[in-house]
Amino acid sequence: MRILGIDPGYAIIGWGVIDYEKNHFSTVDYGAIFTKAGEPFEKRLEVIFDDVSAIIARYTPDVMSIEKLFFNTNAKTAIDVSQARGVTLLAAVKKKIPIFEYTPLQVKQSVVGYGRAEKQQVQEMTKIILHLPKIPKPDDTADSLALAICHAHAGTSALGILRSR
Amino acid sequence: MRILGIDPGYAIIGWGVIDYEKNHFSTVDYGAIFTKAGEPFEKRLEVIFDDVSAIIARYTPDVMSIEKLFFNTNAKTAIDVSQARGVTLLAAVKKKIPIFEYTPLQVKQSVVGYGRAEKQQVQEMTKIILHLPKIPKPDDTADSLALAICHAHAGTSALGILRSR
Repeated sequence: MRILGIDPGYAIIGWGVIDYEKNHFSTVDYGAIFTKAGEPFEKRLEVIFDDVSAIIARYTPDVMSIEKLFFNTNAKTAIDVSQARGVTLLAAVKKKIPIFEYTPLQVKQSVVGYGRAEKQQVQEMTKIILHLPKIPKPDDTADSLALAICHAHAGTSALGILRSR
Repeated sequence: MRILGIDPGYAIIGWGVIDYEKNHFSTVDYGAIFTKAGEPFEKRLEVIFDDVSAIIARYTPDVMSIEKLFFNTNAKTAIDVSQARGVTLLAAVKKKIPIFEYTPLQVKQSVVGYGRAEKQQVQEMTKIILHLPKIPKPDDTADSLALAICHAHAGTSALGILRSR
């Protein structure tokens, strides 16, 4: 199974593609989409949609694994991240890729083994699991790979029933 | 100038197309996009994107006028409305239509003349300005026409400088 992990955002969108077969992980590629702060917001949405679509076309993942959003503060950020996440989901559905979403808690539990893991621990375990020479940068990219690992694990556990809404 | 007004949402998206030339309004068409509560959310996003794209293709508006979002409560609703608004904006940018956004306060000031107008007053004035036989239903459709009127007025007033971000 090939998994595209996505850390959603509007300025930086982390992405990582991994293969998971018979409990073995291999890393296909990873990176980040950057959009320019000076651009009209709708133009940034277009860049995100086009780049995510291009990544899907290039790597033909079987699924997208994307972080579920929660917001307690800063409605402005919540609106903009959500608008960007909307076009990210659209890129998947337009390419007929099923979407699964996981909370940060689920990612920590899946990658490190417990929900109160620090960000650094998640990144270190991501590096080990994927046999990477070092932790990918920016953090958004490392987070996207952790999301991809989370979905790989979920496919063989109770998390698997948590279908995207 | 042909204006597409949009009242954003994820379950109901109001839309209205008007022409505004030399201080004269004429109504081209209006309606609402409905998405099904039972569908996966990403499927609903696709319906919104496809339907808004089809409306733009059919009526070839010069601009989109869409409500600016604010949220103080219910982060869940904020996230979903924003995700849906993201694909609505994408439909416009993909068709190279400039986007302008207005707050409810600006719409009330523009359509009724003062910012504390009641919803009913806005709808009544919308009906009168556009020479409609009755107030369009659902409310989302009436709101979208008010947004279109707001942009028409803004083109000849100080509101005009409030370019979409």
